[in-house]
Amino acid sequence: MPGQGVTIGVDLGGTKLVAAVVDGAGRPSPPQRWPARVTHYAEALDAISELVAGLRQMARGRGEDVVAVGVAAAAFLTADRARVRQATNLAGWRDRPFRADLSERLGLPVVIENDADAAVWGEYTHGAGQEERCLVMATVGTGIGGGIVIGGHLITGGSGLAGEFGHLQVVADGLECGCGARGCLELYASGTALVRFARAAAAEPADDAGPLLARAGGELERIDGPLITALAIDGDPLARRALADLGQWVGRGLAQVATVLDPSMVLIGGGLTDAAGDLVVGPARAEFAACASIRAVRPVPPVRHAALGNAAGLVGAATLASVAGKRSKPHESEMVTRW
Amino acid sequence: MPGQGVTIGVDLGGTKLVAAVVDGAGRPSPPQRWPARVTHYAEALDAISELVAGLRQMARGRGEDVVAVGVAAAAFLTADRARVRQATNLAGWRDRPFRADLSERLGLPVVIENDADAAVWGEYTHGAGQEERCLVMATVGTGIGGGIVIGGHLITGGSGLAGEFGHLQVVADGLECGCGARGCLELYASGTALVRFARAAAAEPADDAGPLLARAGGELERIDGPLITALAIDGDPLARRALADLGQWVGRGLAQVATVLDPSMVLIGGGLTDAAGDLVVGPARAEFAACASIRAVRPVPPVRHAALGNAAGLVGAATLASVAGKRSKPHESEMVTRW
Repeated sequence: MPGQGVTIGVDLGGTKLVAAVVDGAGRPSPPQRWPARVTHYAEALDAISELVAGLRQMARGRGEDVVAVGVAAAAFLTADRARVRQATNLAGWRDRPFRADLSERLGLPVVIENDADAAVWGEYTHGAGQEERCLVMATVGTGIGGGIVIGGHLITGGSGLAGEFGHLQVVADGLECGCGARGCLELYASGTALVRFARAAAAEPADDAGPLLARAGGELERIDGPLITALAIDGDPLARRALADLGQWVGRGLAQVATVLDPSMVLIGGGLTDAAGDLVVGPARAEFAACASIRAVRPVPPVRHAALGNAAGLVGAATLASVAGKRSKPHESEMVTRW
Repeated sequence: MPGQGVTIGVDLGGTKLVAAVVDGAGRPSPPQRWPARVTHYAEALDAISELVAGLRQMARGRGEDVVAVGVAAAAFLTADRARVRQATNLAGWRDRPFRADLSERLGLPVVIENDADAAVWGEYTHGAGQEERCLVMATVGTGIGGGIVIGGHLITGGSGLAGEFGHLQVVADGLECGCGARGCLELYASGTALVRFARAAAAEPADDAGPLLARAGGELERIDGPLITALAIDGDPLARRALADLGQWVGRGLAQVATVLDPSMVLIGGGLTDAAGDLVVGPARAEFAACASIRAVRPVPPVRHAALGNAAGLVGAATLASVAGKRSKPHESEMVTRW
């Protein structure tokens, strides 16, 4: 006798692999983290299979039946969400039929989604953006990702790469980006940029760099995102300035997105935001309002911290998978929710 | 006995009012232009009523039955497309229940749409962007408008103002815009900007300003968009440079839109583009490609001149109206095609 249908959500980031069972209300079980770093393709298939096997067994014990698996991947996917085109931090992932390979391994329908797209879907279905007519979300971590939900559809673009807000040009003839363009937002607003900013400040004989340098034991290389965030939460002016600067850039980029899409709500999430909270979201909100266009006519939408924290991606992927689990043709089902 | 169902499309611009009968294949009858300039609200209701009465009679003579009217308006509309919030070139249009007022006057279902949104819908349904998964269009005239169609839906945004590409910020701390922001695209790329550019060049003792000034009879104030375009078509270097500069700005703005939406096709239309053709579209296409982000992974979409010329808006509005004409609840029907 089949149990209650649930799905498994998997978050395959550049540096971590986490999975959980997600119920119909979008509630994840305590996430299981894979103990090693996974980079190679075959390793990932093995690791996800093991995590899923453990979670299926756990679910069975609770009378639940896992009907599908959704994977939120830090990767550029094809428009049909069948293949990974490229994943910067995952070696050898170029042009892999990830959906079919994983589905065959698991014997279950599989849905894959870009991590930021999965996150905005999680927030739309079960988080801070429910029922929003036009929801936009930026995820701020090592880089900046983005996702868009309009009219209940996840917007994925003509070639599957919509919502790459980290690559909006915010500085004309600015820094060169790995993407081939110049002046991209994530060069100025991301975990990487934050660390660069703070190390540069600490290297100068600045009035207020003392605490930062002391916390790093005098070694510039030990200044990282968590250290800056911890110091900022303790009230350190330099660390707060670094986070505020980052937040302002995010707000400026999101104002451009708002001119294009006129969102009813804007969310900011991702690892760095979840750690720093209003130290990033506050300055982002202020700069977003200062840069808003057509302000005589258009109301400025709310700019909020996302609600699901680091579970947003796996909840979103699991929720996308729950649709696939109910249909016989998985490809068809995806077109219902993703464009 | 009812005739074949057709709709009337109306283009209510800042300086002109034009209407035509549009058949089920999106073909407009020869457009009827209202002989006077219309600015006041009551004037517009009268003028549209007269144009529509004439066109209904003509349609009846051909055995066609007008079932609804669609208006493409150079105006900011409410999200539900019931009211005009503001129309820069139409005096006293603030917060008017235009859809209901016009429907009552005509005794027909009425659909109203922003002019650039109507234009992209025309191109999507009957023009250069048919079947596109993600279609983006900029209309370049006195200012710059924009429209978006994704998955067969016209994207109108949370408050009804999506696609205002003319207000993308392209210059940090740039010129002040009437919209309240700074450095907006349409300050650098529009008919208004073109004339400013050309007049400034002609005022300088530039090597190649002679023909432009001569054509204007030596008077800077007589340099206008049509004059510049005509001269450029004749091969004048300064006039061509002015149009190319404008095109480059349009391409740069559209590259930002592409980073957000990843369109499968980009169209450029509007009065200025229709007159200047590849003198604007060529430089726009080149700059769009030069500014494209994530270029290692994402294919650069085609950037093309729109196909329907100045009929795009009324064809799009008439096509939106044809859906309303078939349903009993007009508001419901709109939600089918517009988000």
